[in-house]
Amino acid sequence: MNQDGIRHVCGFNDCYSLNEDELVICVHTNKSIKTVTLMCNDPYINGCSGTDPWEGAPVQMQLKYELKNEFIYSVTLKPKFKRIQYYFVLSDSKEQCMLFEDGVYDPEIMNKKVIKHFFKFGWMNKNDICSHPKWVENIVWYQIFPDRFCRVGDNKSVYGKKLKTWSVNTPFGRHDLFGGNLEGVASKLEYLKDLGVNGIYFNPIFCSEENHKYSIDDYTKVDPDFGTNESFAALVEKAHKLGIKVMIDAVFNHSGPNFFAWKDVCEKGKSSKYYDWYFINSDDFNKKGSTEDSRYYSFAFVDNMPKLNTNNEEVMEYFLNICKRWVDEWNIDGIRFDVGNEISHAFIKYLRKNLKKDYPELYLLGEIWLDSSVYLQGDEYDSVMNYPFLQSVSNFFLDETLNANDFRFKMNYCYSMYQRQINKALFNLIDSHDVDRAISRVGSYDKFIQMLSILMTLPGSPCIYYGTEIGLDGNNDPANRKVMPWDSIAKHEYDDTLSLCKQLIGLRRKYSRLLNNDNVEFEPSDSRVVTYTVNGKDTLKVTINAQSDEINCKTNGDILFSYKYHDGVLKNGGVIIQKLA
Amino acid sequence: MNQDGIRHVCGFNDCYSLNEDELVICVHTNKSIKTVTLMCNDPYINGCSGTDPWEGAPVQMQLKYELKNEFIYSVTLKPKFKRIQYYFVLSDSKEQCMLFEDGVYDPEIMNKKVIKHFFKFGWMNKNDICSHPKWVENIVWYQIFPDRFCRVGDNKSVYGKKLKTWSVNTPFGRHDLFGGNLEGVASKLEYLKDLGVNGIYFNPIFCSEENHKYSIDDYTKVDPDFGTNESFAALVEKAHKLGIKVMIDAVFNHSGPNFFAWKDVCEKGKSSKYYDWYFINSDDFNKKGSTEDSRYYSFAFVDNMPKLNTNNEEVMEYFLNICKRWVDEWNIDGIRFDVGNEISHAFIKYLRKNLKKDYPELYLLGEIWLDSSVYLQGDEYDSVMNYPFLQSVSNFFLDETLNANDFRFKMNYCYSMYQRQINKALFNLIDSHDVDRAISRVGSYDKFIQMLSILMTLPGSPCIYYGTEIGLDGNNDPANRKVMPWDSIAKHEYDDTLSLCKQLIGLRRKYSRLLNNDNVEFEPSDSRVVTYTVNGKDTLKVTINAQSDEINCKTNGDILFSYKYHDGVLKNGGVIIQKLA
Repeated sequence: MNQDGIRHVCGFNDCYSLNEDELVICVHTNKSIKTVTLMCNDPYINGCSGTDPWEGAPVQMQLKYELKNEFIYSVTLKPKFKRIQYYFVLSDSKEQCMLFEDGVYDPEIMNKKVIKHFFKFGWMNKNDICSHPKWVENIVWYQIFPDRFCRVGDNKSVYGKKLKTWSVNTPFGRHDLFGGNLEGVASKLEYLKDLGVNGIYFNPIFCSEENHKYSIDDYTKVDPDFGTNESFAALVEKAHKLGIKVMIDAVFNHSGPNFFAWKDVCEKGKSSKYYDWYFINSDDFNKKGSTEDSRYYSFAFVDNMPKLNTNNEEVMEYFLNICKRWVDEWNIDGIRFDVGNEISHAFIKYLRKNLKKDYPELYLLGEIWLDSSVYLQGDEYDSVMNYPFLQSVSNFFLDETLNANDFRFKMNYCYSMYQRQINKALFNLIDSHDVDRAISRVGSYDKFIQMLSILMTLPGSPCIYYGTEIGLDGNNDPANRKVMPWDSIAKHEYDDTLSLCKQLIGLRRKYSRLLNNDNVEFEPSDSRVVTYTVNGKDTLKVTINAQSDEINCKTNGDILFSYKYHDGVLKNGGVIIQKLA
Repeated sequence: MNQDGIRHVCGFNDCYSLNEDELVICVHTNKSIKTVTLMCNDPYINGCSGTDPWEGAPVQMQLKYELKNEFIYSVTLKPKFKRIQYYFVLSDSKEQCMLFEDGVYDPEIMNKKVIKHFFKFGWMNKNDICSHPKWVENIVWYQIFPDRFCRVGDNKSVYGKKLKTWSVNTPFGRHDLFGGNLEGVASKLEYLKDLGVNGIYFNPIFCSEENHKYSIDDYTKVDPDFGTNESFAALVEKAHKLGIKVMIDAVFNHSGPNFFAWKDVCEKGKSSKYYDWYFINSDDFNKKGSTEDSRYYSFAFVDNMPKLNTNNEEVMEYFLNICKRWVDEWNIDGIRFDVGNEISHAFIKYLRKNLKKDYPELYLLGEIWLDSSVYLQGDEYDSVMNYPFLQSVSNFFLDETLNANDFRFKMNYCYSMYQRQINKALFNLIDSHDVDRAISRVGSYDKFIQMLSILMTLPGSPCIYYGTEIGLDGNNDPANRKVMPWDSIAKHEYDDTLSLCKQLIGLRRKYSRLLNNDNVEFEPSDSRVVTYTVNGKDTLKVTINAQSDEINCKTNGDILFSYKYHDGVLKNGGVIIQKLA
């Protein structure tokens, strides 16, 4: 019997409270395992000592996720006394084995007078349940890079740089300014409302000499190039009136070069009271140029982004107060933490604990590009930017040797990574200011529309990077940060793409609850036709034809969205989303 | 190529800071994998965007642990910039594969223009490192069950129960009192010093009608049957003078029936201000008898142990202050948290954060019988009672079909479960008040001595349950809680066992640093002769003959301890511990 890869940990993402009543148990196996039975019972049915006899009662587990090399079986229990003791019985087509905490055993173990390491979930404590503000589950986000979204007025940059001409055709470099501002954003709120999004995620809005504002010099003040603290307050208020939530970007991993603490450290060296706010490794640290000499630690060797010591209690307190100030001053709904996996866990825990106490509905999003299990145990972020989703969806379109099974395995990977309730709050994206725009990455308009369709029909809260709704192109920095071509939009030059995008967003919003219910089934197939159903009160079915041939595709429900589908034929590059009858 | 069971998570126990400079990376594989290369580099060598090209440099990983169905390869790095990006190249005898974060790939992936999910450890933040007070690593603990250890004086129980006659031959039940007290313990401190232990773990000492005192009615007051707060202070002071640390037992999962809060709740019901300190599910909760009707939650259905709501902030604060009071009043060195996996994680985190701030050297030990990974991520307990060790060692002696390889796999399981630094602080045991005494469990004096030898020669801080040093027997409660036969000890009736035990403790203390260095190698063998070396500046070699035949066993170093070994022959049941030349 193949016993490789059979495993379970009582905790983390294998055994956890979904809510106050339900407990999820998952077990990982190799693909020879055909059935798994959970043998479970209250740990104290026969007394409270570790040597009392104990027996489990069988509960069948379901194959919840198939991955490339792995099955994940799962079951959801409602333990009457909030605790459960258990082990697993696994079978391939011929034999059985038992999984205890210390490993896999042959069935004869049950007759041996040895001590058995049963698993035990001690107690479903309310405070330990992973949760997030429910409103996040119904959001379609829109990401705004303020310098590039919309410019209103004849502003000039306070940093003395000449603003570039507002046109997608203007050649520009990584450090150019275009003069987009908050007044511009305010003028486009109706556009966003009409587009159908109901949340804005702003790249940083604070004082910084860089156009991206990721080197912040003053965390309390909106960059004068963008506007004022008052104009941002007005913007948030207006957005709220339109039913649009607002999330801003917190860059706490590093400061800008003119942040008061760094300036003090540069001036006074070791005698600065902020010396320990940073990581300085040399007396001779105060000079320009890459920090590859490690004279001080900085973000990615960038000298004007000195790394803040988020282990320091003063730093922790300072930035907690910054967050509180933001919420109090502007009534923002969410904070996105930049470089969310380089700041300390201790700091994130401290922020969460103290922020959720006063603002339980505040959404805390980590910028992490990777499996973020470590950060999503309930006491750090509510959610993370779902780059694994971006990467997995993209790779299916980048690598045409992959088939629908590969896609299925990758999506199952994405949705089996975390405690299940988190899936509903994952910040799903297909592009952002940090990667090639989706359309440029995959180099095909059809594939882009297919990716958008997938983005809008899987669990999480999807995000549209500004311009993606009109199919704006551009590879990573700077081309992915072109200005929005408002004139051309007004002249209806982007209406086709905009219309498709609006339909998809509209569909997402209308079926938001259904599409976010995590009950997704991907059909096995070795073709490049991806089919999945999302099941709830209704069932939506999504079909993506990524193979070169067209396919006959009979629909048996209402077609909610289609692309390159006519008379029962789904062309290469096409999409059908239907509600099954 | 068999790709089952190949896995790594960037975090938890697979990737973590060992200290401020060293990062440990472990990868799990099936047993067909013969070599693993870590391909690693700073994530920002070519820039800070997610789409910059990046290459790793090869570092060979070592096979650190072999388990029954698994290899664990490991490497320790010193990342210059406290962060690292990486993936793995694995080979069996014929083929290669790559492990990225989203799974295993064939080597051709490297030539494909797809996005690769490299692993990335963001930053080795100081505050996130798992650590514990260093002193714990050098302790040999001695567990005292106060009612049964030693009685001095003519005390009578304040609870009106007649005390039983102090003799191992007195028949007794689970609720009998023998009248052991703190004065008795104080009178035996020299005995303990002489035995060689340097830490005492006390079962609860607070007011409670039960002999075990696990249903505490007043957390601020030493049980009058045992003594006074002042006599405990004097005892701790005396112990400290003898170089003996003191740890007490905190029962915060549930209170006793006369605890002020429970009494108030019983009296006033919903109008009690302590109502939410417990979990009450019925208006008609206030009656006697098993709580299997769930009228309120209690420990193990025991009605006089109503479960405290450790999610409630008032409860958390109350018991934090209790801990502080204990340390302030008695200068204790450690606290053992009873039923440590049924109280909330939130509460443990809160306790740790607040206690370590004021008392960084205070040791926080969780009573958890299971894999406690979830509790040992650096922000909860320092360590746990190592029942997996007890169970694994015991099972080898209980099941004679197991061989030295099985033993090796189980020990490797025990020592690969947590971040490596934790191994040095694990509270290792072969018996306690909650299980059969070791000698009775395995039913053999020889096996008992072999278990003791193992206990004293593997990483962790070993604990002797009172009486184990003289081979006291008894199955689980009540027989495992016999009184200490001081008269017989004085008459030298136990000298043989005592002498063996002293030798082993002495050896442990002398080579404490070496024996706790986690560099243990178990020799593969399909016999029942267990051999392992512990390597440091010196190398100690332990040989345990658990097969029925004697073996020829040439020693090539100083024999530090031997049992049933004469003239080069190690009999069945024998032990040799030698320092290699």
